[in-house]
Amino acid sequence: MHIGFLGLGNMGGPMALNLIKAGHQLTVFDLSQSATAQLVEAGAQTVASPAALAQSEVEIIISMLPAAAHVKSVYLGADGLLANLKAGVRLIDSSTIDPLSAREVAAAAAKNGNPMLDAPVSGGTGGAAAGTLTFMVGGSQTDFEQAHEILSVMGKNIVHCGASGNGQVAKVANNMLLGISMIGVAEAMTLGVSLGMDAKVLAGIINTSSGRCWSSDTYNPFPGVLDTAPAARGYSGGFGTDLMLKDLGLASEAAKQVGQPVILGALAQQLYQSFSAQGNGGLDFSAIINLYRKDT
Amino acid sequence: MHIGFLGLGNMGGPMALNLIKAGHQLTVFDLSQSATAQLVEAGAQTVASPAALAQSEVEIIISMLPAAAHVKSVYLGADGLLANLKAGVRLIDSSTIDPLSAREVAAAAAKNGNPMLDAPVSGGTGGAAAGTLTFMVGGSQTDFEQAHEILSVMGKNIVHCGASGNGQVAKVANNMLLGISMIGVAEAMTLGVSLGMDAKVLAGIINTSSGRCWSSDTYNPFPGVLDTAPAARGYSGGFGTDLMLKDLGLASEAAKQVGQPVILGALAQQLYQSFSAQGNGGLDFSAIINLYRKDT
Amino acid sequence: MHIGFLGLGNMGGPMALNLIKAGHQLTVFDLSQSATAQLVEAGAQTVASPAALAQSEVEIIISMLPAAAHVKSVYLGADGLLANLKAGVRLIDSSTIDPLSAREVAAAAAKNGNPMLDAPVSGGTGGAAAGTLTFMVGGSQTDFEQAHEILSVMGKNIVHCGASGNGQVAKVANNMLLGISMIGVAEAMTLGVSLGMDAKVLAGIINTSSGRCWSSDTYNPFPGVLDTAPAARGYSGGFGTDLMLKDLGLASEAAKQVGQPVILGALAQQLYQSFSAQGNGGLDFSAIINLYRKDT
Amino acid sequence: MHIGFLGLGNMGGPMALNLIKAGHQLTVFDLSQSATAQLVEAGAQTVASPAALAQSEVEIIISMLPAAAHVKSVYLGADGLLANLKAGVRLIDSSTIDPLSAREVAAAAAKNGNPMLDAPVSGGTGGAAAGTLTFMVGGSQTDFEQAHEILSVMGKNIVHCGASGNGQVAKVANNMLLGISMIGVAEAMTLGVSLGMDAKVLAGIINTSSGRCWSSDTYNPFPGVLDTAPAARGYSGGFGTDLMLKDLGLASEAAKQVGQPVILGALAQQLYQSFSAQGNGGLDFSAIINLYRKDT
Repeated sequence: MHIGFLGLGNMGGPMALNLIKAGHQLTVFDLSQSATAQLVEAGAQTVASPAALAQSEVEIIISMLPAAAHVKSVYLGADGLLANLKAGVRLIDSSTIDPLSAREVAAAAAKNGNPMLDAPVSGGTGGAAAGTLTFMVGGSQTDFEQAHEILSVMGKNIVHCGASGNGQVAKVANNMLLGISMIGVAEAMTLGVSLGMDAKVLAGIINTSSGRCWSSDTYNPFPGVLDTAPAARGYSGGFGTDLMLKDLGLASEAAKQVGQPVILGALAQQLYQSFSAQGNGGLDFSAIINLYRKDT
Repeated sequence: MHIGFLGLGNMGGPMALNLIKAGHQLTVFDLSQSATAQLVEAGAQTVASPAALAQSEVEIIISMLPAAAHVKSVYLGADGLLANLKAGVRLIDSSTIDPLSAREVAAAAAKNGNPMLDAPVSGGTGGAAAGTLTFMVGGSQTDFEQAHEILSVMGKNIVHCGASGNGQVAKVANNMLLGISMIGVAEAMTLGVSLGMDAKVLAGIINTSSGRCWSSDTYNPFPGVLDTAPAARGYSGGFGTDLMLKDLGLASEAAKQVGQPVILGALAQQLYQSFSAQGNGGLDFSAIINLYRKDT
Repeated sequence: MHIGFLGLGNMGGPMALNLIKAGHQLTVFDLSQSATAQLVEAGAQTVASPAALAQSEVEIIISMLPAAAHVKSVYLGADGLLANLKAGVRLIDSSTIDPLSAREVAAAAAKNGNPMLDAPVSGGTGGAAAGTLTFMVGGSQTDFEQAHEILSVMGKNIVHCGASGNGQVAKVANNMLLGISMIGVAEAMTLGVSLGMDAKVLAGIINTSSGRCWSSDTYNPFPGVLDTAPAARGYSGGFGTDLMLKDLGLASEAAKQVGQPVILGALAQQLYQSFSAQGNGGLDFSAIINLYRKDT
Repeated sequence: MHIGFLGLGNMGGPMALNLIKAGHQLTVFDLSQSATAQLVEAGAQTVASPAALAQSEVEIIISMLPAAAHVKSVYLGADGLLANLKAGVRLIDSSTIDPLSAREVAAAAAKNGNPMLDAPVSGGTGGAAAGTLTFMVGGSQTDFEQAHEILSVMGKNIVHCGASGNGQVAKVANNMLLGISMIGVAEAMTLGVSLGMDAKVLAGIINTSSGRCWSSDTYNPFPGVLDTAPAARGYSGGFGTDLMLKDLGLASEAAKQVGQPVILGALAQQLYQSFSAQGNGGLDFSAIINLYRKDT
């Protein structure tokens, strides 16, 4: 299939590459020449603007952009995709943005005759390279089914979350809970250790009790508990504090828009913000435990 | 074996009963006559005071009391157990109290020649009746092994958490995390639903993602998600809000004693306190989601 | 002077009226016909659009709009003020919006040859009617001095806060502190009363001690302490919970934009959000004490 | 008058000295020999135990002890004051402890025929030396009036807060509010400065607006705003972080005992705890602003 791809950053680049490897014809756009160069080398064509991409013969366009402002500008701008796109071309936005913006863009696309899905991902750059991302997809059942094959090239878990915007809802809700749970585990582990327990023993008990959670059993932030977690390698790699901060910002913003309190969510956001302001934004988010450790 | 049992409340009563059913000889004490009557009917002897219990021929004494003040008074008081107990009698305190008090009492017991374990439980009144409690045990390896058989009569999971007091540490650390996670799930679920998602679909996504936790996959607070959770029966039964509040109070108190911050833990305590002050202390703690639901 | 006025709501209406009463010639615009009708009756002319206002002979334009999106649209839109305004016409935006948006609009105005001040107010609808508002003004010293006379018609305190955007900064910083202090007073008062103190005695002590603050000595939220506070009239009138919520939202949004933690500020926002979600958004913000009172 | 004084630390020492200077006869007790030596040099007699103090000819006993455990032990212990005191001797406890403990001890004293006041102070070591402390006094009107003259020797503000325990209530309520306000000011000031305002200008606006409070106008934590505040001398002297932490601990403990939520109070406690755990417990509590400053 002839696919257009917009936004070739750390995530978008490897995703586009997997589409080429699977035999698809790609036309790509990115502001960075070096980003496109790599894809061209792999066989992609390149265009000079979103408008040019829209005017090319692509059947579907996938975008992976940093924030809602970029998504709105690329899709809704005077020189953007919708203004230049013929009806029927399908759209998938894999950017992580707030649900209301996602719905606004999808509604404009629908009006233009372009079925659109929001399909934010989780799984990190590792999952993007390996083609094992999770896609949380919002949009109609039909559009979801049509997109399934292509998304499966880039991901392993393709989950339909309901109508337009719900892919974003699922992502911000899950990641807000993740951000809270990680701090909860950080507090429980440091409290236990401060009171004299062995970290590994405590994690073992929690992981078979009612405190059990992914942040404890798969990604425990206390060094020495899990060999495979970022805590075992100085909190490098993984899911950066500033990315968690971005998602918590989306969660509290979306909550504000619908008048929904998110008390622990907002506090968690502030704690990651404090940690980031101390210069730790590039560390894996589980490093938040360093706010609590007295021995470091 | 001849066992002394002190404190025959909602938990202690059924626990003592299971010991009788297993063929042990029981001598019991409780301030409430009706509580002892039931045990006497089942074959237990009764005594008039902790001192009398200490002076009887029991080989081991198990206590299940409401708070540290009771434990200290019963064990350390002028007319208490230690003042009247001969060396060698073994002690197990299954009360949930702060770790430092547990260590203080255990140290006094050791000085008196009485090996002591702290062994708080989880599993609720249901688990107490069914003999399926989890015991989190602090004390020496030898003492733990000696107590294992008797604890197994009352529980299914008997976990050694390390030295004296660590049973309490494990319990408060786990339950603090549980209290935080439950509010985190409540916020994530209500945020998602306020933004237009179906609760069951959202829970399904969370339960296979990084937000996965016991509070979501086993005890989800949103009505309609799980048939077996308290949310399905109006938040009756289960683990009461005021019990969670007590455990969070122990956690923040223990944290204060060792100068350890527990930021989300303290906020969670205040939120359960708010919910309890509104008259909801008797509801299962997952009812905390009602602080967040706009549709109720 | 010939003044243009945009946005004739609860605040803007009375402000514009005071300008007419002071002898100025007014040309006004508002989407609501009934809002303009009142001003026309008082002697104002009316125009059909922001563009028409810009093309009229006004020497200065004052705007009072609900949110940053409106301000950006009215000033920066294709049919907006700047696109239709000749250089030299001075601009004053009295809307309360985030500082970065205020600076963005002011920079565009400067580029267009139109000196612009941000001048958000405090003092409520009462102050707007009485002409006793406080204006917190951001912009150059010269522009501030030129605007002083006109602002003095509508307000009593005209404070220069520094360069462009700083009027907004001063307002969100002050109001965030106000939102926090009010909850602090609510907690201190209810704690004291729950512990057995008389509310008036407690307030008297606080007001001569280190807890002294405007929320306690001038606007005490506990009923019976001050005859003049909203607490004495069922929390009607005053500064609405939803207005406080809006300002706290601006504060946390601005904080996010500059990576500044505001931990209590964000928590205060969530507490007012909870209170508003329970249907209390129209009550004076000091009614937040009802989240804490067990006797009501 | 012949006065007994118990507890000659940083506060009690200078207070006792002022009583001697005013011509009173003092009999003192402290575990530290060097503490008593200084008073003996000034003319005091010394005794070897609280019991001996009780058995001496004192007409009134004043105590100034670190925590409730000491107060209970000194007053209620088997060898304590009450067990050795004849009826009629009056008692004043100036320790800062939780209100319920204060009431428990006062009730026991009353039963023993000894009228007792709780009279915690504020004003720091400076005020203790200068005799300018504030006394917040709980107890009967008669007892308060009788004690007024002696308290006036040590303090300038002698405030009757109502019945027994209310001196402690007033102190914890005021200081909890103070702890919250200070963090509120820290957040407002750092937010404003991060957004580009001058700290002194911002403080000036806040101090004439609704954010006005003692923490801003008298004790502003931002360096350069006030020459007289601890911020001007590296946060040395003043009211230590660990003392604020103790008072917030008393507030949240008392709140727990009466089931009263104190949400910001508990969060403030955790933030001072975090700051103290980083090694800053000895700095003035206004140094908490360093948790927020990105430029330091």
